[in-house]
Amino acid sequence: MTDLHDVRALVFDVFGSVVDWRGSIHRDLSAWGEANGKKADWEAFARDWRSHYQPNLEQVRSGRRPFELLDTLHREALDVLLLKYDIDDLSDAQKDHINRVWHRLDGWPDSVPGLWRLKARFTIAPLSNGNVALLNNMAKYAGLPWDLNLSTQWFGNYKPEPQTYFGAVNVLGLKPEQVMMCAAHNDDLKAARKLGLKTAFWARPTEYGVDQIHDLHATEQWDVIAKDIRDLADQLVG
Amino acid sequence: MTDLHDVRALVFDVFGSVVDWRGSIHRDLSAWGEANGKKADWEAFARDWRSHYQPNLEQVRSGRRPFELLDTLHREALDVLLLKYDIDDLSDAQKDHINRVWHRLDGWPDSVPGLWRLKARFTIAPLSNGNVALLNNMAKYAGLPWDLNLSTQWFGNYKPEPQTYFGAVNVLGLKPEQVMMCAAHNDDLKAARKLGLKTAFWARPTEYGVDQIHDLHATEQWDVIAKDIRDLADQLVG
Repeated sequence: MTDLHDVRALVFDVFGSVVDWRGSIHRDLSAWGEANGKKADWEAFARDWRSHYQPNLEQVRSGRRPFELLDTLHREALDVLLLKYDIDDLSDAQKDHINRVWHRLDGWPDSVPGLWRLKARFTIAPLSNGNVALLNNMAKYAGLPWDLNLSTQWFGNYKPEPQTYFGAVNVLGLKPEQVMMCAAHNDDLKAARKLGLKTAFWARPTEYGVDQIHDLHATEQWDVIAKDIRDLADQLVG
Repeated sequence: MTDLHDVRALVFDVFGSVVDWRGSIHRDLSAWGEANGKKADWEAFARDWRSHYQPNLEQVRSGRRPFELLDTLHREALDVLLLKYDIDDLSDAQKDHINRVWHRLDGWPDSVPGLWRLKARFTIAPLSNGNVALLNNMAKYAGLPWDLNLSTQWFGNYKPEPQTYFGAVNVLGLKPEQVMMCAAHNDDLKAARKLGLKTAFWARPTEYGVDQIHDLHATEQWDVIAKDIRDLADQLVG
């Protein structure tokens, strides 16, 4: 393990790394569908919804459209999906409720206990493409004990654009090597490492379900490679 | 009490309202002076330092100078004070340590227990002129359990400029009447109420010590008038 004595803050990727979006949406919308008489393969629906994520973010990152909140991008994709899955006759309030399922995601079982232990030693924050309100509502819902909310909304762009990582480092009043990017996604860590941040990886091999082909293992020798967030706490706090 | 059922987030003034800057600086610098052979009336020093606060912020609010972090404004005032109090021969590291005393302020005795109870029902955040790093370090030091950090640094200006209150409301994805400004300073509440936020007041009659002439009582019928933050929790959470 490289020298990590200077690390003061751990910033976390959230979707997939800290919370289980696929399982949470599957559970939430299955219950909602049952209560509202709407049938669908909600697990496939969740995966399909997420597949719009990177293409939609890329429109912002490439400059083809101005910055939009992730809530807005989620809603645009949802409108497409509701047609595709032939789920119609929904009120605006129902569509809003469904769209806000991204505010109601559960942590993986190790996330809350691991984060509490890390919080005693480090500043911990999400550095996520979720907008501020989404991440805050999710934290209240899932019990994620963040010290502060470093949504990329504050920086007007989406990861992995450099201004998002540098923005986090700067507002914390720290140097890049005093901040560790923590994620289950190799690409996120690659972007952070290039800017001088420290890196920690763990795999979430069931994040995408049958679709998963990436991020089953670390693809570089990251500063910390852990089994999960509880193990990250074991390694960093002991 | 007016209708407060829609309130979802409580945003707090911090200096004086949540933390005791005068007492904390007095204690911290007395111990530092003792250890470093520097004698001064550190209580007067703290009051003198704080007296530079509003004039320095006003330079930014009036547009006479661009936005600067509060850490920078504190340091400029400190350099003036060290001359005035004839405290010389300090290294840069020592001056930085003294300047960061604003990151090491203690909560009033009711602050931490009151905030924990409020956090269970509401989103709680500082809406303070302290910069992000200052407020985060203070939260870790004093054990203030904020959900997120709404430093006015994010909004590029200082309270009571409207963009700071509206900025907080907007990033939370709420309407003004769903957010309550909570402070021991009537002027802060007056600015927030004008924009449609709810308001809560308690007095901190020893904040300024012998200098205190303002904010000994509520000057308007705020939505909640409490004895302190514990009493605010009694009234809002029960």
